[in-house]
Amino acid sequence: MTISLQDLSPQAQQEVAATRETVAALHAELPRNDLVVWTAGNVSQRVDTDDGAPELFVIKPSGVSYDELSAASMVVCTLDGEKIDDGTAADLQPSSDTAAHAYVYRHMPNVGGVVHTHSTYATAWAARAEPIPCVLTMMADEFGGDIPVGPFALIGDDSIGHGIVETLRDSRSPAVLMNRHGPFTIGKDARAAVKAAVLCEEVARTVHFARQYGDPQRLEQRDIDALFARYQNVYGQQKGTAS
Amino acid sequence: MTISLQDLSPQAQQEVAATRETVAALHAELPRNDLVVWTAGNVSQRVDTDDGAPELFVIKPSGVSYDELSAASMVVCTLDGEKIDDGTAADLQPSSDTAAHAYVYRHMPNVGGVVHTHSTYATAWAARAEPIPCVLTMMADEFGGDIPVGPFALIGDDSIGHGIVETLRDSRSPAVLMNRHGPFTIGKDARAAVKAAVLCEEVARTVHFARQYGDPQRLEQRDIDALFARYQNVYGQQKGTAS
Amino acid sequence: MTISLQDLSPQAQQEVAATRETVAALHAELPRNDLVVWTAGNVSQRVDTDDGAPELFVIKPSGVSYDELSAASMVVCTLDGEKIDDGTAADLQPSSDTAAHAYVYRHMPNVGGVVHTHSTYATAWAARAEPIPCVLTMMADEFGGDIPVGPFALIGDDSIGHGIVETLRDSRSPAVLMNRHGPFTIGKDARAAVKAAVLCEEVARTVHFARQYGDPQRLEQRDIDALFARYQNVYGQQKGTAS
Amino acid sequence: MTISLQDLSPQAQQEVAATRETVAALHAELPRNDLVVWTAGNVSQRVDTDDGAPELFVIKPSGVSYDELSAASMVVCTLDGEKIDDGTAADLQPSSDTAAHAYVYRHMPNVGGVVHTHSTYATAWAARAEPIPCVLTMMADEFGGDIPVGPFALIGDDSIGHGIVETLRDSRSPAVLMNRHGPFTIGKDARAAVKAAVLCEEVARTVHFARQYGDPQRLEQRDIDALFARYQNVYGQQKGTAS
Repeated sequence: MTISLQDLSPQAQQEVAATRETVAALHAELPRNDLVVWTAGNVSQRVDTDDGAPELFVIKPSGVSYDELSAASMVVCTLDGEKIDDGTAADLQPSSDTAAHAYVYRHMPNVGGVVHTHSTYATAWAARAEPIPCVLTMMADEFGGDIPVGPFALIGDDSIGHGIVETLRDSRSPAVLMNRHGPFTIGKDARAAVKAAVLCEEVARTVHFARQYGDPQRLEQRDIDALFARYQNVYGQQKGTAS
Repeated sequence: MTISLQDLSPQAQQEVAATRETVAALHAELPRNDLVVWTAGNVSQRVDTDDGAPELFVIKPSGVSYDELSAASMVVCTLDGEKIDDGTAADLQPSSDTAAHAYVYRHMPNVGGVVHTHSTYATAWAARAEPIPCVLTMMADEFGGDIPVGPFALIGDDSIGHGIVETLRDSRSPAVLMNRHGPFTIGKDARAAVKAAVLCEEVARTVHFARQYGDPQRLEQRDIDALFARYQNVYGQQKGTAS
Repeated sequence: MTISLQDLSPQAQQEVAATRETVAALHAELPRNDLVVWTAGNVSQRVDTDDGAPELFVIKPSGVSYDELSAASMVVCTLDGEKIDDGTAADLQPSSDTAAHAYVYRHMPNVGGVVHTHSTYATAWAARAEPIPCVLTMMADEFGGDIPVGPFALIGDDSIGHGIVETLRDSRSPAVLMNRHGPFTIGKDARAAVKAAVLCEEVARTVHFARQYGDPQRLEQRDIDALFARYQNVYGQQKGTAS
Repeated sequence: MTISLQDLSPQAQQEVAATRETVAALHAELPRNDLVVWTAGNVSQRVDTDDGAPELFVIKPSGVSYDELSAASMVVCTLDGEKIDDGTAADLQPSSDTAAHAYVYRHMPNVGGVVHTHSTYATAWAARAEPIPCVLTMMADEFGGDIPVGPFALIGDDSIGHGIVETLRDSRSPAVLMNRHGPFTIGKDARAAVKAAVLCEEVARTVHFARQYGDPQRLEQRDIDALFARYQNVYGQQKGTAS
């Protein structure tokens, strides 16, 4: 049975509309930060819906160029990854990575946003299946340690989602480098996941160049712990929002 | 005998005009994606003409800067690479790579678009005459395997076109790295060929960095086959158009 | 006791307002020169205040994106790093690097501007704790020798500021690479410090690539001395302002 | 005796005005093509003046940012590198590289434009004092062989100009990599010299990456000769202008 947007409460419908605006706008950060080319990459965010109604999330349509993305072209899906009848004229198919996003939302209730890119340097580490060692204070701040590698998994079923969740479940890192594929990042909302994607590429690039003439020394664990705790709690304008 | 645009049916003339618009607009993607500098690089697209009339294609004028390109400055050529009398005031010479494009259109009837660039990383592989190994899922998606190397060939006759066709004829890859020269890409239309040029540079760059600290493992052939089949048939908004 | 902007003379208040404009505008140079991503990095400038009144400086608010920065969102602090009551509606917290900037202003009276970034190549040298050798005339011009490395220091107290001052006090270089953290630069004003940050990244990048195929030869000390003296005194439109 | 613009014929004054427009506009190509940061780099062009009047050229003012450059801020100099009284309110000093440009114009009568940058990859080769080998068809086209290295020379007298002229006098290459300094390029006019600067950086970058995994094979001399001859005579819209 297909769900229809009209069946939701006006408040939930408004929530969907607001989330579409947010997700459409955040997609612009991907090309702007050189994380994607052509139509690759995608951002999604979970939607608060009515009690009893199925949970939803909003994601990029498949194969549409970044210039053409708008709130109206964002696709609304259930946590099973099924597109709902969203009452818009544009009948767009969701991103081919939708199943992976859906799996993450089903299994990580605190995750409100997911991002996937093929950003160059993060993907280079992913191609070697090599975690990025925590050799910079900004890595300790945002990732709380190394950025881990996930398994090789084919698109088309739950394999990718399962690999992301298994890797990140017990990690402080909001980023995972999927083997020979590319980075996925998570966050309390889509903005936090986009931030993690931006910083993941930044540290992937910096450590790539750093190690070219010697092995940078990993930070002491107690220093990593201190930096991570401080950044997660003090940085930014409101306690607890390091956005 | 020079062909004149006026000899074509109104419908064919309209087709030429539309193709000029398309090809002019797609040229903007080359500098935007950092695939070219100065006046280097070119895009062409085949035109559907009247039964019995010679087939045509539209290509960039030689040595004109990207800022100055417009539909009006695009040059219309026969599949012999000869400029036709296109009735425009601007009497511009076609790209110096026109013969190579023409050869491809003559010998690969399914090809509707051709792109040539000197994009940095793809050209670096071309300088070593080394194929790019298929070590990333996005390579399997778009190229269906390694990106092959074509022969060294001088400009001025059919050598480059011949090298492109011989290399790509039995390959899934829409890209060939011409030895010590640079990449040429093909597609069902110019947009698909531009996409291949963008992704060719992306994987050339990513694999360049990936292998710096170890040899990334090639994907299994059955995984490459599965990814390629899925991407060519499922990705995007319409079955069969992975644009 | 918190200081209030209203307690200052009209002239000093005007000086604060002008400095906010300057510092806000200079922040745009950081993303424009690819020195920062997301909300990282910060610029500050010392303010001339009244005799007897505490000295002040203006700095970026913490965790605010570069697009949203304006003169009004800049934060005014004492040289103890305490935010003053600046009479604006926006109650923004200063950069988490404020203590380091404040320490520099307290201990280096000739410094009027400080900049901190995580720019890629400078941070790569910092990750290895390796000074950048003076192998280019432009390094001699701006830095008067090698760019030195500072100690590893945690954020949260005076450690970073102390490390900067100890390293730069007896150096001609306006830039220090803080161990596994990133560059800090100083100048007579914020503009000079931003310039040093831009050139620091430029030489970090160029020397990174230069040494890949051999060790570039360090300039002779007498040549470094001659270039530095000339650049500091002759370059630009006014004697002594190499801006 | 200082020359004054007013002493020239109206036609020569018009020539000066047109050259200022051209040189100001071409400066925008330097940051646009990522060849310079901050105020580094400069473009000049020779001016046709009256018979008997001293020859002149137009060059960038020293230490002025690229955003602030305009036709009015360009500086007019004699071939001795002396600024003339140009009747403008802005009394700007010419680039600190003016003596080198002037020396080139005095000793290479066919040169109408000179460009100097510190572009990253070209400067990296210059730091190692290593010529760029001709391993790409686009190098043969534009440079007709390797890009040579000039001597190490200090700023302040004729040393740099002399090094440029001695290196390029018997070379096909319009670019020289000055030892531990950076590239200078020449051309029939400023536009041709800017083009050479853009392509010099492009091939410096591409060959830098190409050789990372093996030594690309140099083109055969007869192929270099054929490509160079063709490009100089056939490419572009008018025979002989490969602009």
